[in-house]
Parts: sequence; structure tokens; C-alpha cells
Amino acid sequence: MRLNTFHNMFVDQLRDIYSAERQIVDALPKMAEAASSTELQNAFEQHLEQSKGHIERLQRIFEQLDERPGGITCKAMEALIEEGSEIVEKRGEPHVKDAALIAAAQRVEHYEITSYGTTRTFAKHLNMNDVADMLQKTLDEESKTNEKLTKLAEGSSFREGINQEAVESS
Amino acid sequence: MRLNTFHNMFVDQLRDIYSAERQIVDALPKMAEAASSTELQNAFEQHLEQSKGHIERLQRIFEQLDERPGGITCKAMEALIEEGSEIVEKRGEPHVKDAALIAAAQRVEHYEITSYGTTRTFAKHLNMNDVADMLQKTLDEESKTNEKLTKLAEGSSFREGINQEAVESS
Repeated sequence: MRLNTFHNMFVDQLRDIYSAERQIVDALPKMAEAASSTELQNAFEQHLEQSKGHIERLQRIFEQLDERPGGITCKAMEALIEEGSEIVEKRGEPHVKDAALIAAAQRVEHYEITSYGTTRTFAKHLNMNDVADMLQKTLDEESKTNEKLTKLAEGSSFREGINQEAVESS
Repeated sequence: MRLNTFHNMFVDQLRDIYSAERQIVDALPKMAEAASSTELQNAFEQHLEQSKGHIERLQRIFEQLDERPGGITCKAMEALIEEGSEIVEKRGEPHVKDAALIAAAQRVEHYEITSYGTTRTFAKHLNMNDVADMLQKTLDEESKTNEKLTKLAEGSSFREGINQEAVESS
């Protein structure tokens, strides 16, 4: 992470989230496969497609900035995904495992929410309004994915959530 | 992370956030020392005191559950703090470094926000309303710390924020 200018620090923050997104795209198929709930599988698969779009959006931003996306590995995302993988590989009561997968996925979403929030604000300070708009679009999608996961876990007045199923079956 | 019952998974989630809090208490004095802005130093120092209270609150929860807090190391927090330490140890333009410290600290806050949100909801599903209330109290404090960091970075109509100072000085 270069700290000599705000612009360079901003570019390195973008490289960090680019690395994070690429790791997420690798991890999501395994999360989907490990889920028992069809709705949760669908949520992971939809987020996989969305994340591929986020990577393309970041690539367009790097082109606009005349910078290359690589060179930084997001270690925090490596650890978040490692914790998710431990759940994926572990046997357990299927509903409890689904609830734990959601908890792991929401940690990933929150990392993305804070990273896109930070980079969106940095772009505004640098008067890059187009870039800020693109980052805001991704931020909105990440927030919606996080809300969807909360609904799947908590349920609604119409249907029981995964948490309640996990309580009842264990 | 045990996945055999919802109760055991909940206890292990609490152990994860307990490990995370202890790591945060070790890291915050270094973050405060590395900050140039007095307001940012104060924010880190206040959060240090708050985090000590969060650890005590978790210890009361473990006593209530008749469980022990140790045995799990939060690897995600290890990586988040490692990324923060890299910024702490690196030379750079002081305002740019402060902006990067805030970005790192907000990632830590978001990890805590999602973890306390998850465990608070789990406690409710297990009809542990006292425990849920305690976790909610910590969650509210984490959210306020996160908002305070956003204000320090973005500034207000009364004063310039750290991001703008970083743009102007680099």
C-alpha cells in the first residue's frame, strides 16, 4: 500500500478489492455446493454472476485511470475465505451448516461494503465522479446481497428462516 | 467451528469475536501512536477503552452460558490487523497515512458489526434475550465508532476532513 500520495493510496485500495473479488469468484461455487437450502444455493450463484460484473467494472476503472489491476493480494479476504472453506469442508447438521455459511458470507459482504464505501468516497475527493458512480453501483449491489442473506437467515412473516430451522433441527 | 448444533455454533461464533476483540485491544495503541491527527488518536484511544468493555461483556455472556471463552483464534482479524500493521509501520505523507489508517480501522469495525449482528440474532433465536441485549449494546457502540471514523475522514460543513487534507497535501 503506497502512502506517498492520496491518488496512489486510492489505486492500491482498488487493487486490494480487485484481488478480493477474484478470490470471491473462486470461492462462491464451493459455498453454493456446500449449501443445503436451494434458496441459499441460488443466492450464492447469483452473487457469483454479480461478482464477475464487479470485476469487469473494476477493470474499466483501471483502464480509465491508466493503471494495472494486479500486484496486491488481499490477505484479509484470503483469511475470510479460509474460514468459509473450513465450514464448507466440515460435516454438520445441514441447517446449522447453512446458518454458518451465511455468517461467513456476510463477513465477506461487509468487507466489500467497507472497501467500496471507502474507494467511492476517495474517488469523490479526487473529483473522479464517473469512477465514484461505478463504485457506488457495486456498493449498492453488495448491500442488497447482504440484506438478502439476512432475510434468508431470519425469515419473514411468510416463511421460516434458516436460523429457526437450525434451532429446531438440532 | 462446531456445526452439530445451533447452540454450539453460536458459542463458537462468540469465541471467534472474543478472540477478535482481544487482538483489537493489542493493536489499537499502535494505531493511535501511528496517527498524526489528534482527533484520530483520540478516536482510537476511546475505542480501546470501549473494546475492553466489550471483552468484559463477552466474559459475562460466557459465564451466563457456563462456557469458556478461549480455544478459537480469529484468523480473519489476524489478517485485518496485519494489513493495519503494514500501514502503521510504513512511512508516508502523514494525512495520506491517516486516511489509510481509517480505511483499515473501518474494515475492523465492519467485521465486528457483522459478527455482533449475527450473534445477536442467534441469541434471539435461542430465546436468550439478556444475551441478545448485551450483544446489541456492543453492536450499537461499534456502529457509532464506524460513523465517527467516517466523519473524521469525510469532514463536515464546519471543518475539513482527513481525506481532503490528504488530497491537498499530496
